[in-house]
Amino acid sequence: MKYTKNKVEDVKIAYIGGGSRGWAWNFMSDLATTEQLSGTVDLYDIDYEAAVHNEIIGNKYNEVEGAVSRWEYHARKTIGEALTGANFVIISILPGTFDEMESDVHLPEKYGIYQSVGDTTGPGGIVRALRTIPMMEVIARAIEQYCPNAWVINYTNPMALCVRALYDTFPGIKAFGCCHEVFGVQRLLTQAVEEVYGIKADTRRAVKTDVLGVNHFTWITGAHYQEYDVFDAYAKFAENHMDGSLIEGNREIFPSAHLVKFDLFRRYGVIAAAGDRHLSEFCPGKWYLESPEGVKNWGFSLTPVSWRKDDLKKRLERSRKLREGEEAVAIHQSGEEGVTQICALLGLGDLTTNVNLPNRGQIPNLPLGVIVETNATFTHDNIKPVQAGNIPEGVYALVARIADEQNNVARAAQERDLDRAFLAFANNPLVTSLNLADAKALFDQMIENTKAYLGEYFK
Amino acid sequence: MKYTKNKVEDVKIAYIGGGSRGWAWNFMSDLATTEQLSGTVDLYDIDYEAAVHNEIIGNKYNEVEGAVSRWEYHARKTIGEALTGANFVIISILPGTFDEMESDVHLPEKYGIYQSVGDTTGPGGIVRALRTIPMMEVIARAIEQYCPNAWVINYTNPMALCVRALYDTFPGIKAFGCCHEVFGVQRLLTQAVEEVYGIKADTRRAVKTDVLGVNHFTWITGAHYQEYDVFDAYAKFAENHMDGSLIEGNREIFPSAHLVKFDLFRRYGVIAAAGDRHLSEFCPGKWYLESPEGVKNWGFSLTPVSWRKDDLKKRLERSRKLREGEEAVAIHQSGEEGVTQICALLGLGDLTTNVNLPNRGQIPNLPLGVIVETNATFTHDNIKPVQAGNIPEGVYALVARIADEQNNVARAAQERDLDRAFLAFANNPLVTSLNLADAKALFDQMIENTKAYLGEYFK
Amino acid sequence: MKYTKNKVEDVKIAYIGGGSRGWAWNFMSDLATTEQLSGTVDLYDIDYEAAVHNEIIGNKYNEVEGAVSRWEYHARKTIGEALTGANFVIISILPGTFDEMESDVHLPEKYGIYQSVGDTTGPGGIVRALRTIPMMEVIARAIEQYCPNAWVINYTNPMALCVRALYDTFPGIKAFGCCHEVFGVQRLLTQAVEEVYGIKADTRRAVKTDVLGVNHFTWITGAHYQEYDVFDAYAKFAENHMDGSLIEGNREIFPSAHLVKFDLFRRYGVIAAAGDRHLSEFCPGKWYLESPEGVKNWGFSLTPVSWRKDDLKKRLERSRKLREGEEAVAIHQSGEEGVTQICALLGLGDLTTNVNLPNRGQIPNLPLGVIVETNATFTHDNIKPVQAGNIPEGVYALVARIADEQNNVARAAQERDLDRAFLAFANNPLVTSLNLADAKALFDQMIENTKAYLGEYFK
Amino acid sequence: MKYTKNKVEDVKIAYIGGGSRGWAWNFMSDLATTEQLSGTVDLYDIDYEAAVHNEIIGNKYNEVEGAVSRWEYHARKTIGEALTGANFVIISILPGTFDEMESDVHLPEKYGIYQSVGDTTGPGGIVRALRTIPMMEVIARAIEQYCPNAWVINYTNPMALCVRALYDTFPGIKAFGCCHEVFGVQRLLTQAVEEVYGIKADTRRAVKTDVLGVNHFTWITGAHYQEYDVFDAYAKFAENHMDGSLIEGNREIFPSAHLVKFDLFRRYGVIAAAGDRHLSEFCPGKWYLESPEGVKNWGFSLTPVSWRKDDLKKRLERSRKLREGEEAVAIHQSGEEGVTQICALLGLGDLTTNVNLPNRGQIPNLPLGVIVETNATFTHDNIKPVQAGNIPEGVYALVARIADEQNNVARAAQERDLDRAFLAFANNPLVTSLNLADAKALFDQMIENTKAYLGEYFK
Repeated sequence: MKYTKNKVEDVKIAYIGGGSRGWAWNFMSDLATTEQLSGTVDLYDIDYEAAVHNEIIGNKYNEVEGAVSRWEYHARKTIGEALTGANFVIISILPGTFDEMESDVHLPEKYGIYQSVGDTTGPGGIVRALRTIPMMEVIARAIEQYCPNAWVINYTNPMALCVRALYDTFPGIKAFGCCHEVFGVQRLLTQAVEEVYGIKADTRRAVKTDVLGVNHFTWITGAHYQEYDVFDAYAKFAENHMDGSLIEGNREIFPSAHLVKFDLFRRYGVIAAAGDRHLSEFCPGKWYLESPEGVKNWGFSLTPVSWRKDDLKKRLERSRKLREGEEAVAIHQSGEEGVTQICALLGLGDLTTNVNLPNRGQIPNLPLGVIVETNATFTHDNIKPVQAGNIPEGVYALVARIADEQNNVARAAQERDLDRAFLAFANNPLVTSLNLADAKALFDQMIENTKAYLGEYFK
Repeated sequence: MKYTKNKVEDVKIAYIGGGSRGWAWNFMSDLATTEQLSGTVDLYDIDYEAAVHNEIIGNKYNEVEGAVSRWEYHARKTIGEALTGANFVIISILPGTFDEMESDVHLPEKYGIYQSVGDTTGPGGIVRALRTIPMMEVIARAIEQYCPNAWVINYTNPMALCVRALYDTFPGIKAFGCCHEVFGVQRLLTQAVEEVYGIKADTRRAVKTDVLGVNHFTWITGAHYQEYDVFDAYAKFAENHMDGSLIEGNREIFPSAHLVKFDLFRRYGVIAAAGDRHLSEFCPGKWYLESPEGVKNWGFSLTPVSWRKDDLKKRLERSRKLREGEEAVAIHQSGEEGVTQICALLGLGDLTTNVNLPNRGQIPNLPLGVIVETNATFTHDNIKPVQAGNIPEGVYALVARIADEQNNVARAAQERDLDRAFLAFANNPLVTSLNLADAKALFDQMIENTKAYLGEYFK
Repeated sequence: MKYTKNKVEDVKIAYIGGGSRGWAWNFMSDLATTEQLSGTVDLYDIDYEAAVHNEIIGNKYNEVEGAVSRWEYHARKTIGEALTGANFVIISILPGTFDEMESDVHLPEKYGIYQSVGDTTGPGGIVRALRTIPMMEVIARAIEQYCPNAWVINYTNPMALCVRALYDTFPGIKAFGCCHEVFGVQRLLTQAVEEVYGIKADTRRAVKTDVLGVNHFTWITGAHYQEYDVFDAYAKFAENHMDGSLIEGNREIFPSAHLVKFDLFRRYGVIAAAGDRHLSEFCPGKWYLESPEGVKNWGFSLTPVSWRKDDLKKRLERSRKLREGEEAVAIHQSGEEGVTQICALLGLGDLTTNVNLPNRGQIPNLPLGVIVETNATFTHDNIKPVQAGNIPEGVYALVARIADEQNNVARAAQERDLDRAFLAFANNPLVTSLNLADAKALFDQMIENTKAYLGEYFK
Repeated sequence: MKYTKNKVEDVKIAYIGGGSRGWAWNFMSDLATTEQLSGTVDLYDIDYEAAVHNEIIGNKYNEVEGAVSRWEYHARKTIGEALTGANFVIISILPGTFDEMESDVHLPEKYGIYQSVGDTTGPGGIVRALRTIPMMEVIARAIEQYCPNAWVINYTNPMALCVRALYDTFPGIKAFGCCHEVFGVQRLLTQAVEEVYGIKADTRRAVKTDVLGVNHFTWITGAHYQEYDVFDAYAKFAENHMDGSLIEGNREIFPSAHLVKFDLFRRYGVIAAAGDRHLSEFCPGKWYLESPEGVKNWGFSLTPVSWRKDDLKKRLERSRKLREGEEAVAIHQSGEEGVTQICALLGLGDLTTNVNLPNRGQIPNLPLGVIVETNATFTHDNIKPVQAGNIPEGVYALVARIADEQNNVARAAQERDLDRAFLAFANNPLVTSLNLADAKALFDQMIENTKAYLGEYFK
């Protein structure tokens, strides 16, 4: 890298899963608008052609209106080529195909288990973890070999278990996990403050929040905005909108009236900081995911994998259009923080934000080593979690459980031990609606369905 | 007290709940056969007449054949009189009547929740705790006032929450909780060793066991007998008797084929050390308590409170016969350890056995302060838990949960806060088969039914 | 307070020790140059006249060239008046007079114990703590009464024990301790980088450092500047200047060739981050403080209290000149961070810097509750220490000791127990050059000499 | 092994250092008087001839009057032969010769550093550790290879560092360290009780003690005997004998008036539980070891290595007499507990006693992994430390230091890093009476003198 006045050139970024249609384009857009950086992005994907497509699209961003930096994109045939010399590594992969995800999410429905996302916990998240963790091990070993000092940003789900696998495989890795779910709740807080006090905060970052928990089941235990009592505002806001009047977003696919969040707040007194689709999956199944109708009453919805398949088709078509020039690439606000974090790690402005890191004591009442999400300071070549404090009593029971599930699934995957994996599966709060025989039958079928990606477990 | 050669005279024992018909007589019998001790037992009971009855019965033990020590029994009208000058305090009370217990145990059945005992965890155990904890607070404060240096042995259930309440109220208390569930499993181990190796151990104490967990959900992680592999014996023994061939005990009321224990062993590799009726209540409801038929298939049974009511009638009648001389009092083997523990605390022989004490680090991966059950050394005026080690991975998920439930219920009871109690209730693994509305309805009814003993919560 | 666009008006600051001649003027200058803030500063001092003098001087800063904000200064007769309504409290007091400090620093010389500062640890620091802690208790109780939600910045030494006393007295206090010693070492690092790599860092803040330890005995375990190896630079820099060639600063009073720092680095491999005058006092007395000649050879000097007395005279005279207009007040760079921290706590820009806070786990291998110095994030109304990690092996022996001394002195002072204080005193590494009889004689004399401020211990 | 009714035959014991003249004979005598055991003892010694001598002597014990069990003794030429098939391993070696020990103990006197024993801490103990730890590593690796399931009892000093090295080398080892220093203080307590209350306790074991600390610097924090206040008795006893009237024992070599113990008690309020010769070496050098005269005033004495050399000559001569029949072997009371512990580990009677084990949390305020001494329960094939509690404030400063020294010396030895060893050496409280140059000179000379046994450090 080359440091000049408030600018770093020749930054090398390796992008694992670089054939992505969608998230990769966000990242390209964010890089293009970051004046302080320039360099190269090496795209690696097990679908090499997809990486080549993104090389074409990525390079177009240099010419787009509003671009203020220059990046060369290259598709690479091997992970080693992509990683060699990298200063930063992005990991954003799809473990398996949407066919596997279809089994993860929808097969349990036959047993009355509904999952709104199915990629983090619950039967779907656990089985997804089983096929993802061996992939993460391969990536971690490659990073150890080719660029052990690079900073590694993971976006793949199940987030906590992926980051965990990176550290379990290569303990010296400088990895963290990045997720935008908390950001949405920060925006909700500014909305609450505006509604209750008539004050408009500029951005979600104006309301400062104490964040702690496990990815997709994070909690805000303190929120500060000028002299306003943000918790009080949130209480009133929740009361105002218990009627579901906040329904927003893509009404057909990801609507949310935030009723799960409000219910958790009403009961526990702290702010659950993720989308309702995620939060509900960490709670006993009967609470918010009892049935499709129940879900509707709680103001959110189940995301069918068929939608993802359709959406992928649209994105494939869009990829074609972008690289063939039928559609122009364009700068847009991604809402993601990855590039800001890269800047901070290069010394271009300190940052405090929430990320996923191994617990070294930042949450004293969760086990050490578990991947937790808290605020952290990003300074030059350095990330340090803040001492976030204990998970509050009450919600502790809900969070301690997932920490232990993480330990058990991580260990089972590491040892390629499906019997051990079943121990965690059977004890998951969505699965405990089944007796052991049914739980085992479901587990076996889910494993069978996704066997193509579980070869390591059958050696 | 008066120490003479290997003997202590003038020991004063206060017995809270001293009107007990049954357990008290065991204790009288044990005292009568302990040559090393003599003194007085002061009986206190909210049913003073019952205490008077036991005064009569107790004093008869001095004359019985086989009695080798002398004890004077007195019924006392106030707890203060009973406690003044006490060296030891026994707490063995029934919180409420069997009518309350009927609600605890059977009302949940209307919602499809079956409980085999209903006094420790589950909806019944939690509601029982709510009415018991304020009673324990009263007792703890009286001990602080009248005999702060006495050793206090609790036998009341829910054991862990009762001992917890004693310490929360009077942190300087020298209390521990005593339970015989582990002893039964130790006997099972000697049976396994005999069956597999053809070796007969003299007593359950010959097989040495590492015990750790929470009362009624304790685990044996090591077992030592000569050069035999006890775990291996247990594995074979479990396999031999997976067919239910171990059915034993009172076939109508407490039969057990130990199939829950064997299933937990098969899956987790460590030995669950309590009766199946208790173990099953700590697991997700669908595992072993799905339905009365399911329970039968697992080789154990639900104990109806009607049986307890009938049994009480028999015991009342027996009390009459005993005090009127229609039936002679008699020495019998109680199988309890209380008197042996008293001897050890008086310096009459060290003892290592399992008891319930606050976690000061003896189980490092459970929260501090939670009442846990581990081995402890009893020496002169001193109990120290042994450093028992971590709850093994796998079962940790099951045990960590109950530790947190204990924290939440203890706090809710202490603050007389039923909303807070409901947080724990709703998250109990037997209750999570219900949605929140049903859980709330059940909770409210159970509270309503037992309101006579919950006055403190409605002030 | 009144928030407007990127600005906060009507901030109220209470300044305890507001009659200060020197440090107060730095603070006034810093406030005057901070466009984002305005409000009032209430000065309280046990020397009311001194506060009145500073009221006059402070108000002059509104008119000075370069002032960009407006502050009203008021001397207050009672601490209650000063604290009422305060948003921030500054504590910067002299505990006792320089006569007491003369005894603290110089009496031990009769026993061959030399102290370069004598206000933090060593016999002088311990006795100073004994008279300071009761004062801090008074201040903490007043804060609890008059402004429990204010942020409290302590500058008084012994820093760690003062902050400790604030928290021990009022556990809900939002206090932290602020010290510039680390800043000097950060400047030294930029100097090293420049000398070795020929690269000039703009400011000390450009080199990012991982700071951890106890005030005045802090350590830098990581340092990051672009792609340079800062530790390697420091190693070469230390080697280059082992000859004492770095002598700098006020040559007569506080010269330092940094040889103590270099020696500690050479031996332990981590960077001691305070002035050599402070560092040497935490080490065994024979290492760097064997004799005045030895001190000279290590390139630093002992600060005689006579110098402080002379200096005070000059500052008193300067106070007169300033308020009578003989000398004009003027803006200058204080190098302090207090006002920047106040801005961050008001939401005007996040900050990561090193401060003194109770250990909640940010340094896992030091006892909880001990006041430690680490980096912390300052965001809106919020300070969170970063998870700094363990004190490195090797230096751990040196640092663990002072943590324990802190515990012992805090407890002794709290209990007004001089016998207990002597336990810590006798075991201090400067004092262990004496036998117990001499240590006791020294302690007794030091207590006698400073008795005017130790009345609480003789009640 | 062969278990029969309350008896175990065919026990195999390996004795490393089996050529010992003295301690080995105690062990032989204890075995001979233990009816419950019989078997073989394999003697291994780097001095093979010495082992052969003990084979002859050992076998004579079978014929002696009072012998109630039968043991075959064999000298073995290799450690592997001795260890193969062993159920128990005794380690009792002399690391180096008394020439090395002469340097350890007496060379520091040239620098004014006096050591009463010089085998545990202080300059002598540290250098002794450096040559012992590599030997312990060899033994641990051999145990791992030949008898990984054997119980290993170490008697070699420095005790804590030897046991530490065993665990560091073979973490699965079942080792503990055994030392009789606490026993002497338990006897002193019975003496105090008798003197103050006129009550005679049968044995030292009648007074039950809570023991915790680090070997040779252990503390009794609780003591229980009937209804007597043992601490109060000890306080009076100490007062009675502050005049030195307790002088006892071998007046020329190991006299002790227990004044160090009494002084520590007076100041810290807890009972130091080791001989004064050991205790004094853990304290700042000026306290009890200022000079030979000072030592005398404290009522104990320095043990010259010349005495050990003379004593060895006598013991060599005695060995000759014993094996040639000039002197008859004889049963005597050793006062040691090793054979009782072996019985307990074979299931022949539970035992609670103090031993040295890695800290797994039994002393929560000392670092994990450090070898600490606490009570432990010995049951069948099982040792578990009791949860001993925290080192009391006050003495914590003294004990935490030695824990850290243990860490530092262990690490330095493991890495064969003399520079690192010097960090611990220079910071030892006997050595801090020297400046760094003198400390280094002393260290270098001590290393030079004992180089014959430090070859590993110079590779």
